[in-house]
Amino acid sequence: MNGADILCETLLANGIDTCFANPGTSEMHFVAALDRQPRMRCVLGLFEGVVTGAADGYARMADKPAATLLHLGPGLANGLANLHNARRARTPMVNVVGDHATGHLIHDAPLTSDIDSLARPMSHWVGRAETAETVGARCEQAIVAARAGAGGISTLILHADAAWTETPFVKPVPVARPELAGPDAALTGQAAAALRSGRATTILVSGLALREAQLDLLDRIAQKTGARLLAQQANGRMQRGAGRVALDRVPYVIDQALACFSATEHLILIGAKAPVGFFAYPGKPGSMLPETCDVIELASPDHDLTAAIAALADAVGAAPKARLAARHRPDLPTGKLTPDAIAIALAGAMPDDAIICDESITSGRDFFRSTYGAAPHDFLQLTGGAIGCGIPLATGAAVACPDRKVIGLQADGSGMYTVQGLWTQARERLDVLTILFANRRYQILHGELLNVGAGPAGENARRMLDLEDPTLDWVQLARSMGVEAARADTAEGFRDLLHSALARKGPFLIEAVI
Amino acid sequence: MNGADILCETLLANGIDTCFANPGTSEMHFVAALDRQPRMRCVLGLFEGVVTGAADGYARMADKPAATLLHLGPGLANGLANLHNARRARTPMVNVVGDHATGHLIHDAPLTSDIDSLARPMSHWVGRAETAETVGARCEQAIVAARAGAGGISTLILHADAAWTETPFVKPVPVARPELAGPDAALTGQAAAALRSGRATTILVSGLALREAQLDLLDRIAQKTGARLLAQQANGRMQRGAGRVALDRVPYVIDQALACFSATEHLILIGAKAPVGFFAYPGKPGSMLPETCDVIELASPDHDLTAAIAALADAVGAAPKARLAARHRPDLPTGKLTPDAIAIALAGAMPDDAIICDESITSGRDFFRSTYGAAPHDFLQLTGGAIGCGIPLATGAAVACPDRKVIGLQADGSGMYTVQGLWTQARERLDVLTILFANRRYQILHGELLNVGAGPAGENARRMLDLEDPTLDWVQLARSMGVEAARADTAEGFRDLLHSALARKGPFLIEAVI
Repeated sequence: MNGADILCETLLANGIDTCFANPGTSEMHFVAALDRQPRMRCVLGLFEGVVTGAADGYARMADKPAATLLHLGPGLANGLANLHNARRARTPMVNVVGDHATGHLIHDAPLTSDIDSLARPMSHWVGRAETAETVGARCEQAIVAARAGAGGISTLILHADAAWTETPFVKPVPVARPELAGPDAALTGQAAAALRSGRATTILVSGLALREAQLDLLDRIAQKTGARLLAQQANGRMQRGAGRVALDRVPYVIDQALACFSATEHLILIGAKAPVGFFAYPGKPGSMLPETCDVIELASPDHDLTAAIAALADAVGAAPKARLAARHRPDLPTGKLTPDAIAIALAGAMPDDAIICDESITSGRDFFRSTYGAAPHDFLQLTGGAIGCGIPLATGAAVACPDRKVIGLQADGSGMYTVQGLWTQARERLDVLTILFANRRYQILHGELLNVGAGPAGENARRMLDLEDPTLDWVQLARSMGVEAARADTAEGFRDLLHSALARKGPFLIEAVI
Repeated sequence: MNGADILCETLLANGIDTCFANPGTSEMHFVAALDRQPRMRCVLGLFEGVVTGAADGYARMADKPAATLLHLGPGLANGLANLHNARRARTPMVNVVGDHATGHLIHDAPLTSDIDSLARPMSHWVGRAETAETVGARCEQAIVAARAGAGGISTLILHADAAWTETPFVKPVPVARPELAGPDAALTGQAAAALRSGRATTILVSGLALREAQLDLLDRIAQKTGARLLAQQANGRMQRGAGRVALDRVPYVIDQALACFSATEHLILIGAKAPVGFFAYPGKPGSMLPETCDVIELASPDHDLTAAIAALADAVGAAPKARLAARHRPDLPTGKLTPDAIAIALAGAMPDDAIICDESITSGRDFFRSTYGAAPHDFLQLTGGAIGCGIPLATGAAVACPDRKVIGLQADGSGMYTVQGLWTQARERLDVLTILFANRRYQILHGELLNVGAGPAGENARRMLDLEDPTLDWVQLARSMGVEAARADTAEGFRDLLHSALARKGPFLIEAVI
């Protein structure tokens, strides 16, 4: 066996059996190894942003890492934006990035670059496999790092000669899973005291705290103590809908976020970060909290959130039963197609256990508030602000959950970033419905341009913020990559298309002209 | 004026009047500044790989840098692969990358990342403008670095508060151009001695040595001394065709490259690097030169190549007249459409002064040898091996040279990487004809898989190396972004399409099914 085979076997021994890939020459021995090992499912992305974004979506739903296969520094670079999002979501992932044979680096061949420098900002762990003998151990380190705490991005740089060299094979055994830190009694006591203080207290949560069972217990704590329960602005995955706890998120818009916390005296963090402005604005603070607000980090993202919540529930004596959202089917709107009309139609029509991948930016803000009482669903967000995450995220989630309907809420501007992901949806026959919000502009930036006091956009600004002249034809675009598609520009037309699209299996795109 | 205005004025004062852009919120004050300054031409790319690749193509043809505008770390990351190619081409470029306001970094907001670490591998110069007062000086440093030597990638990180803060305006004056190092008499003497030695000598050239006048003189040196004149395997820009010196390049395939130099006793480098393997292969050397070959670097890429060539011509007493390629119109083939048939059709039909942007990978290897006697043209290549350069390169070249026909030779696999560039061609009404070689596979990797001895591709390898199931419909894909397109699958059909496409202005794509 060569180093590439050992890498493949080590991944499989640890339950990593899906590899999102776009390989090149320096990875050809690993491709050959994957070819010899049919247990590994290889999913091609026609651009590396698709590869890493799909690995993110996969792991958020499978609760285990996928591998990626990337071609040297530039291939990694193309995948970095979605690694950034995955890092912010604390998604576990094992990237395999090919590099030249160790002896070839001195020649500074055209594709040579400083892969470590590129990898580090978006990785929790970076390592190199320089010999066939060390590939197995390095891969195990990468897996341990990917599974540590809430999850991490591991980037393993695989030299071509480490891959191609023959070495004795020792069958890999699964590596031990790192233990999560348990509840801290002192912090639990502090949080319980804050909750009992009678002062305005918010429990801010993210990560695994956003799963159904944990939210149930959190609501029972909030109910008992009168605290407010809130989720981070952006979260990797949240379980919501009818029969589950209805939870608000911190608003994105800075003035709304400041107002949201203006009366908060105690903030208890469970797997969440203290809220800050997504961007800085002249004359506005970076922290969304009043200066007097007391912050207790009950459990960092790397702690055992479930145990921390259970300990807190014990300490405060949680209410016996959570308050759960009732099923609500809003009246369908008619007439002009608006983001709100789309949200309401979805609220009524989404099937049970749908997976919503939201990169709708401004156009999707109506969705969240319209779907507290929709059929229960998982809600996956753009976590790092690096646009181009939506189509890949939906692709990976559908690979992880072939029996669930995936619905992508996709803005047109960000959709163009990784539009190649539609082809992978067609190739893999994935059950993804993409709702493409065609407002034909970077709408969020028009708002921000007004915010900076520049007045309405002139010629240069419009040319940078508008997606018109020419208009993108998303129906043709999707079909060119093998995804069936249709266009709607009225509420009635959208509703009809939505129903027929949800009734079929396989990828489909609705261009919603709003 | 604020820092953003000063940045804009400093760029303009130095002749940088074209900005390829994809901005975000943190760059909104710079967008507002560009909006106030109509002398700056802003060209939107719907993905940052388009932005940086277009800036590369622009500078290769304009012989001066463009600016780019990129959104924080992820925006830069998306543009890195084409920065890698530009760095290898020694293209001058000034990247402006927004960052959060200086005081906001401590909050680790979602889009925060280590921009310096990302920028460094693909930049010759990285700096930060942290205050409005220093924006002008920092921008000047970036411009100096971009123009140093053969050209460099400058990455200026612009903090939002440096952009938005008001500061007194001092009208910028153009910064001095760095002087290039002149000829070295000792090296000139050594090179002349090698050329007179009677032993097998190759002059290997790149950079500005590949312009018409310099090649003319180089051929006169070669003619006089019996030396072989050769260009690097990949070059940023090369002037060729009828009436110019016919020049071969170092072959890409390693065994051919080794054979090409097996008899070489002296190698004289003028703006070129000593040839190395594009990749490493088991049992094959990294250097393409025999161990006994003597290498004289007459002029590094950062030297004044024109002066170095003139000094060498003087030293050896160059022949009076260069040997120039005659106009040659090959017979048009018929029947099945092949890469060779496409090359021959192009050789006959290309208009004078066309700009060829070649990212055709395996499919375009026939083009070069078929077009020594074609109408004179500039030939731009993928210089760093990071695929996804072709469509953006053609886009930028067309912005720089609106009166010349740009012809992109584009492989399908790499074309998908930055396919969004077609939209910019439509938006800017650029005169670009894209010849899309649809072989529907990563053909080069099929060859490499055979090379590693893995035998023919099995299920997993085919799923990673083939672009079928589904087939991409490039005609629909182009039209969806506003670019007219048609398909050809016979030599006759291609020839007819080519003639009608060349007769019109504006972007067009021919899907050549080969």
